[in-house]
Amino acid sequence: MLNINEDTITQAVLASMDDRCDARLRTIITSLVQNLHSFARDVQLTEAEWFKAIQFLTEAGQITDDKRQEFILLSDTLGLSMLVMAQNNKKPTECTEATVFGPFYVEGAPEYENGADIANGARGEPCFVSGQVRGLGGTPVSNAQIDVWQSDEDGYYDVQRPSEGSAVVSHQARGSLRSGPDGRFHFRSILAEAYPIPHDGPVGRMLEALGRHPWRPAHLHFMIKAPGYDTLITHVFRDGDRYLNSDAVFGVRSTLITDWVQHDAGLAPDGSKMEKPFYTVNYDFILNPAEVSA
Amino acid sequence: MLNINEDTITQAVLASMDDRCDARLRTIITSLVQNLHSFARDVQLTEAEWFKAIQFLTEAGQITDDKRQEFILLSDTLGLSMLVMAQNNKKPTECTEATVFGPFYVEGAPEYENGADIANGARGEPCFVSGQVRGLGGTPVSNAQIDVWQSDEDGYYDVQRPSEGSAVVSHQARGSLRSGPDGRFHFRSILAEAYPIPHDGPVGRMLEALGRHPWRPAHLHFMIKAPGYDTLITHVFRDGDRYLNSDAVFGVRSTLITDWVQHDAGLAPDGSKMEKPFYTVNYDFILNPAEVSA
Ligand SMILES: [Fe+2]
Ligand SMILES: [Fe+2]
Repeated sequence: MLNINEDTITQAVLASMDDRCDARLRTIITSLVQNLHSFARDVQLTEAEWFKAIQFLTEAGQITDDKRQEFILLSDTLGLSMLVMAQNNKKPTECTEATVFGPFYVEGAPEYENGADIANGARGEPCFVSGQVRGLGGTPVSNAQIDVWQSDEDGYYDVQRPSEGSAVVSHQARGSLRSGPDGRFHFRSILAEAYPIPHDGPVGRMLEALGRHPWRPAHLHFMIKAPGYDTLITHVFRDGDRYLNSDAVFGVRSTLITDWVQHDAGLAPDGSKMEKPFYTVNYDFILNPAEVSA
Repeated sequence: MLNINEDTITQAVLASMDDRCDARLRTIITSLVQNLHSFARDVQLTEAEWFKAIQFLTEAGQITDDKRQEFILLSDTLGLSMLVMAQNNKKPTECTEATVFGPFYVEGAPEYENGADIANGARGEPCFVSGQVRGLGGTPVSNAQIDVWQSDEDGYYDVQRPSEGSAVVSHQARGSLRSGPDGRFHFRSILAEAYPIPHDGPVGRMLEALGRHPWRPAHLHFMIKAPGYDTLITHVFRDGDRYLNSDAVFGVRSTLITDWVQHDAGLAPDGSKMEKPFYTVNYDFILNPAEVSA
């Protein structure tokens, strides 16, 4: 410890941890320190670059609040979120694939009955969504909790809209439903559109400097929970979107892309008469049985 | 991009960068992504652990302001600061070694004449500091800018003291001096004491979980600038301090440890009569010639 230099510093940090501390934490910090130091050595990081990194993290912290999460955006755009999600959600190929959670989920969204319109004032072309929740082998999963959330026609989630001095969150284009006895669900919402992730902060500047765009292809978020099954966090993507091949957060999986069918004005799936064109999308979700703990 | 999984994600992120973006930035982000992903794979980071990391960074951002820099503390305690400093400050062994900058430097500290008392009201036992700034081979370096800063008897830097509703920063126990024609400088201050780095935030919790203490051995910070020489950022440490072998930020180098001599009441080096015991410390700094740019 009295003659630490660039060769001995890594071992000195590792040796400073008490042998009696939590073994998992020690494993994590050991690897973190090794990889962080490996990065700094690999690129021969300069003091000026180090200071820029400190400023970057500081700005990310300053822009982060209960509605904006710059550190998740950073993790998403560096592919860390997708990696962590993927390595923790290995399942039989029959199951629906998972993808990134993203920063726009909100707890306490309204509960809706099947058939409800969850747009709640959010603007966009009408879209009727339906599907079935099943287990492996096709068993319908009834009473599954289905949380959905999405952006509006301008590409904004409700939480990104200025709150206009009001503390009330309006919960637009998001909600929580339950699958029926046959595992089926259906609701009305609006057409999801491609949107840029918030890029007026340090992550946006990073993307620009790297020659990357901030866009995500149009998608509908789902989180599905049912007793006896792993929670499924995923999206359903709109086929044909121009950003499917360059998602800013690397969340696209081809099995999650489906047709969002455009219909002329006329009879909607729920029997109502639509005076303008509307969309329908149907997607079934196959849940993975939860591992039984020993 | 349509079938990204845990094996293909790293290459997908690297491929997303535009070939025309700044080459150095591309080198840095490439290595950062590789090492970050390597870490997540190595420990098989779980989604819950990932979320704890997001929360950790968020809290670090929230506690950081113009007086508190949690990200520098994080870098310091993980040994990254010392590594970056060391690999960028290789110099002839005759030169004074550099060490970490730390988070407590403040721009615009008062300028003092040699002989001044820089304590400016900070409490502690009197300490008379002197030394000489030289180049290789012993040439005195005159008119070098010598910035010094230190903690008080309670282990606090002035910026850590509550501001008591006032925006005025009092600049205690910090200042900027110039070496004389013979390269010498001297000033009066207070005895530096060991102190814990701020540990009431996420970094403090991390240290505690790792069984590490937050203490730094007593030291006086120096930053010395002179035309034609590399800027030297370093500390002078007090010999005998109990934390010399376990500095929380890994900043100790044996060549920077020196005797801080205790004296009985009597005549001080500046000729004044001290009615209580005082300390003296003398340390010479050898600067490295700046590389001449081509
Ligand atoms: Fe989204
Ligand atoms: Fe210090």
